[in-house]
Amino acid sequence: MTGAFFGPTDPPQRLLMGPGPINVYPRVLRAMSMDMLGQFDPEMTAYMNETMALYRQVFMTDNRRTFLIDGTARAGIEAALVSLVEPGTRILIVRAGRFGLLLSEIAGRIGADIRTIDLEWGEVASLEQIEAAIKEHRPRVFACIHGDTSTTMAQPLEGVGALCRKYDVLSYVDATATLGGNPVDVDGWGIDVVSAGLQKCMGGPPGSAPITISEQAAEFIFSRRHVEQGIRVAGTQDGQGVRIGSNYFDLAMVMDYWSEKRLNHHTEATTMLYGARECARIMLEEGLETRFDRHRRAGAAVTAGLRAMGLRVFGHDAYRMANVTGVWIPDRVDGEAVRLRMREDFEIEIGTAFGPLIGKIWRIGAMGYNAMKHKVLITLGALEVVLAGQGYPMPRGEAVDAALMAWDAGAADETIRK
Amino acid sequence: MTGAFFGPTDPPQRLLMGPGPINVYPRVLRAMSMDMLGQFDPEMTAYMNETMALYRQVFMTDNRRTFLIDGTARAGIEAALVSLVEPGTRILIVRAGRFGLLLSEIAGRIGADIRTIDLEWGEVASLEQIEAAIKEHRPRVFACIHGDTSTTMAQPLEGVGALCRKYDVLSYVDATATLGGNPVDVDGWGIDVVSAGLQKCMGGPPGSAPITISEQAAEFIFSRRHVEQGIRVAGTQDGQGVRIGSNYFDLAMVMDYWSEKRLNHHTEATTMLYGARECARIMLEEGLETRFDRHRRAGAAVTAGLRAMGLRVFGHDAYRMANVTGVWIPDRVDGEAVRLRMREDFEIEIGTAFGPLIGKIWRIGAMGYNAMKHKVLITLGALEVVLAGQGYPMPRGEAVDAALMAWDAGAADETIRK
Repeated sequence: MTGAFFGPTDPPQRLLMGPGPINVYPRVLRAMSMDMLGQFDPEMTAYMNETMALYRQVFMTDNRRTFLIDGTARAGIEAALVSLVEPGTRILIVRAGRFGLLLSEIAGRIGADIRTIDLEWGEVASLEQIEAAIKEHRPRVFACIHGDTSTTMAQPLEGVGALCRKYDVLSYVDATATLGGNPVDVDGWGIDVVSAGLQKCMGGPPGSAPITISEQAAEFIFSRRHVEQGIRVAGTQDGQGVRIGSNYFDLAMVMDYWSEKRLNHHTEATTMLYGARECARIMLEEGLETRFDRHRRAGAAVTAGLRAMGLRVFGHDAYRMANVTGVWIPDRVDGEAVRLRMREDFEIEIGTAFGPLIGKIWRIGAMGYNAMKHKVLITLGALEVVLAGQGYPMPRGEAVDAALMAWDAGAADETIRK
Repeated sequence: MTGAFFGPTDPPQRLLMGPGPINVYPRVLRAMSMDMLGQFDPEMTAYMNETMALYRQVFMTDNRRTFLIDGTARAGIEAALVSLVEPGTRILIVRAGRFGLLLSEIAGRIGADIRTIDLEWGEVASLEQIEAAIKEHRPRVFACIHGDTSTTMAQPLEGVGALCRKYDVLSYVDATATLGGNPVDVDGWGIDVVSAGLQKCMGGPPGSAPITISEQAAEFIFSRRHVEQGIRVAGTQDGQGVRIGSNYFDLAMVMDYWSEKRLNHHTEATTMLYGARECARIMLEEGLETRFDRHRRAGAAVTAGLRAMGLRVFGHDAYRMANVTGVWIPDRVDGEAVRLRMREDFEIEIGTAFGPLIGKIWRIGAMGYNAMKHKVLITLGALEVVLAGQGYPMPRGEAVDAALMAWDAGAADETIRK
């Protein structure tokens, strides 16, 4: 035992322009400073129901089963996979970055029969590639990442749900990096299960994973309910499927907890619920289209600014997420020294990278509360200064001007996909 | 889509005197309203290290591996079990209430070979019973609940760790309900893995699960690490054991994330970390002995007050937790009508019950920020009034007087175990 108490929590005020977590909306922080309610207090269950209604709008879905998983975004991914995938279930996974690899890592632990579409980091799968793989492998479940922050790319999902239904495949998409800043059109795309987090475009803290589940996916998951005396009440279809390997991530139980049945499961993380609810309220007050446009402007401004510095942006313009931009670290520039000076002199964080891209690209985020003109301009201005200090030759001030023009051009700009 | 926005988060100010969640220390709520830091920011990793040092003191242990699981208390239980128990592992579980049943439910999903010590709800296992069961079943893992809120009883743990080591058994204890208000003497008892939550005696919100892991348990868990390209770096002992069935709850990965290696796993739930850190700071500033004494006084005062009303307290005095008291609902009194009027007229929540005790007992909590003299007296005074309104005959005011005397008697009172 050390006997140390340490001082109060008083983090420095950093401008977090990396791939997330990012600065949280002050309104969300205030909502999270409210006191507890009893778990089955009618005021508490009303907040739970309101949160469900709010996230239906955020996910653009009518799915009754739209709620929160108590854990980080990764908890949402695992809850979806462990509930949809039985040992031996054949699953087709698109792997084009770190989080696609995570999907197959989790599926492997479940004992799934894993088939993959393996792409270079930064590529996306075409609808034709997906259909060909489905025809070849005949999976029960298809899974992919919408926006993979490790590569900054967004997998196009138009038509993917219809394709999966054509071949009787359940579909899962992780939208952690995109939800709240890029359209995540769950019903339009026809995806069965989509999960996310708060710490990217939603402008909240990590620790809560919104999830939405279609009727057909819910029916399958409920078929995996098993009766256990003293623990839970049986549904009519209980026990048809293989029991879900996790209690905490058993979505049948979590759905029952969030339903009018209110069957006791975990104790809902009240503070995170308050935060998630406020994140959604802010988004819906802003309006989805205005919100997406703001993120597109931010992404276009970051891109224009970086290009005006003569830097090369990572990946295809057609598939880049609006909210995180990868940029190649120039030759003879020490990437970590730049990040260090950005943090120490300017209190601005930009991101490093993972896997094959480590040391090769930086990742600059502009999302949620930080997808704002002044924050983009401040970041680009600081980066220009720091790069110049590293001997990287460029005219000063042009990046900021270019970014400002791109921001103002808004929807007319073509460098970020719509 | 409903199109509804709903109002700001503004919960009514309830006095939560049930089994938890309870009212959170205002200092904790303020700590949780601080903004984010980057995940690998040195300020963030310093907070993580400080939180580890603080929880070593809270758990009374020198265990290097003492950290937080991002999820509710149930997440801590599942992380411990899925990491300690392989499919086919023989586990001995004490079941004397709802949460003992939960342990076996989770172990069942893992595919464990489950052996049990089954007791009536409200009983505890003696050391002799545990030793006899260990000798009979020769388990690899022993698991029990310290304080089961469903029964308000605390399982005595003195000597249990030594017993387990004698028979080469790894031990796990869930201390969700007791940590922060009753001694949880991890090293003194010699328990290998102990997990908890914040929403009981720690005076925090649900959503973070402190956990501590002994060297021998950590060594076993690390032996279950498997290498996966692009996902994690291998340790020297990787791959000896059966791979852990969960990624999110893979304690080998979570330990690596919290170690100086900082191997990326989930994104730490920053807000919950701030909250957990402040809960521990408050406890250590108060001092462990003062803290435990305050909870004993609160429990003795609740007990004395209930008895002065002529009510019968549930369970053996020798084994009751200090922080939650069960009380039999008197004949001809409508238990739910009492709870409703307590909430609606007094804004005070007292708890209902589970399983065989549902409708038979109420549970009254006095813990963390609510283990205070005035809150106990207010609750008892209100309960007297409400019971009188239900036609329950008793002299008025005696409960409060009796509670006050018990509070002031403090350590001299014998109705709550020390």
